[in-house]
Amino acid sequence: MQNFENFLLDNLPVSKSIHPTYEKALGQMLRAGGKRFRPALLLGVVKSYNKLMVESAMHAAYAMELLHTYSLIHDDLPAMDDSPLRRGKPTLHVMFDEVTAILAGDALNTYSFEVLSKAPFSDYTKVQLIQELAVNGGLNGMVLGQAIDCYFENKPLSIEDVKVLHTNKTAKLIAASLKMGAIIVGREKLGEVLYDFGIKLGLLFQIQDDILDVTQSSEEAGKTTNNDEDKNSFVTLLGLKEAMNQANILADELLKELDSFDENLKNELSPLLRKYIKRHK
Amino acid sequence: MQNFENFLLDNLPVSKSIHPTYEKALGQMLRAGGKRFRPALLLGVVKSYNKLMVESAMHAAYAMELLHTYSLIHDDLPAMDDSPLRRGKPTLHVMFDEVTAILAGDALNTYSFEVLSKAPFSDYTKVQLIQELAVNGGLNGMVLGQAIDCYFENKPLSIEDVKVLHTNKTAKLIAASLKMGAIIVGREKLGEVLYDFGIKLGLLFQIQDDILDVTQSSEEAGKTTNNDEDKNSFVTLLGLKEAMNQANILADELLKELDSFDENLKNELSPLLRKYIKRHK
Repeated sequence: MQNFENFLLDNLPVSKSIHPTYEKALGQMLRAGGKRFRPALLLGVVKSYNKLMVESAMHAAYAMELLHTYSLIHDDLPAMDDSPLRRGKPTLHVMFDEVTAILAGDALNTYSFEVLSKAPFSDYTKVQLIQELAVNGGLNGMVLGQAIDCYFENKPLSIEDVKVLHTNKTAKLIAASLKMGAIIVGREKLGEVLYDFGIKLGLLFQIQDDILDVTQSSEEAGKTTNNDEDKNSFVTLLGLKEAMNQANILADELLKELDSFDENLKNELSPLLRKYIKRHK
Repeated sequence: MQNFENFLLDNLPVSKSIHPTYEKALGQMLRAGGKRFRPALLLGVVKSYNKLMVESAMHAAYAMELLHTYSLIHDDLPAMDDSPLRRGKPTLHVMFDEVTAILAGDALNTYSFEVLSKAPFSDYTKVQLIQELAVNGGLNGMVLGQAIDCYFENKPLSIEDVKVLHTNKTAKLIAASLKMGAIIVGREKLGEVLYDFGIKLGLLFQIQDDILDVTQSSEEAGKTTNNDEDKNSFVTLLGLKEAMNQANILADELLKELDSFDENLKNELSPLLRKYIKRHK
């Protein structure tokens, strides 16, 4: 993923402000690294079917990372999770202030759509990508997930509702990343298949996150861990052992589905996904 | 503007959440009314050149109002202006809590682009509209204006920097509203002329807002007034008398420019603009 990292660094949002904090804050959390999992999924799909489009697809991968990053900045705010650490660095409201974190998040949210509107795709593709990102990252997607997560912080949810929470909070943007890759290479039917696969993958990803949150130190994770004891997570609901069991069942399902993909797609996604799918085995 | 109001009420964002607050909050500030000045400008331009497109244009006017409304919700947050009152109603963080206000604002920001991506326009027009809204409502537009406003709350700015502040915070979305109307009716050159006109109009609008803020009671204004004594405004910098003088000079310029517009456009915009342009004369 070195190429995407370079693309991101070359395209950091620039705002000629008369105050240095705002401009610094806009790029801060983007530069801080992170797994770039969503961009890797999107670019992996594109690379499988059309290597010539990978460079254009960087714009879409970047838009996805922008929206994801804004969600982390707002999620970490004092009124939300109140996290001091993210991606191994102090969070924006700690390094600067709350105003900066709110505004930088707002700016990156909107900027993700600016980037897509200016990306080197046909207008038809741009509109599909924008819609996919907005629907999955918006009021019936990621933001809904955040809302459920916050409102039920101290109230136990059923396991079904926890799945609704994580499907919205995490899985929909992961699913959208895969689907946006398929949209770019003009394979709409594949997009639907990959979207469903991505929802499951996102759910697994979240269960693993819940597990890591109780088994890893903050230093290892690069963010504040053991901070979620009041949160509805698979671990708090099922216990660590059963959560790990569920993760493994889901992982096996995903490996089987992955095996049914086109050879090129399977070869491209396998190294990336096995790393996550297998990480507790 | 009754039609737009109905359109808005028929199209309020709906999210099937397992918690009632989130869904209620999404529509709360939209339903609360407001001048609908930006939608009126956009629809006024469309009506002047193609009455048959007014109904489609409602989607774009609504997207603009969504983005504007999110900006008000976040602007009112405790970390920002900390305002208890907006559009004659308690602000979202007062009625519910900060989490709700942050998330509802985030959701409406993203939803504005979802609405545009699904609007009944050609893909070419959609992409132009999305780009216009994102550029003017984003990191080098409205959000930059908010940032300057917040960072220099207790530090005096030069009159030139105050113009930069208000051009970004207020004028660019007003200018974009007029330009988006022109984009919808396929008149790109007119769009540029109207954009420049809109920047001036937005500046006038903000000077008037600063003036009203010291001359009106909260009850009359429907929001917290006399709350800006630490803010950089034309009134704090120039004094009330000179601010009113500048407003009148700008108003005369705008009336002259308005007079040079096509007859249909002039007739459509005049009643709407004269109300604002003349309100201190």
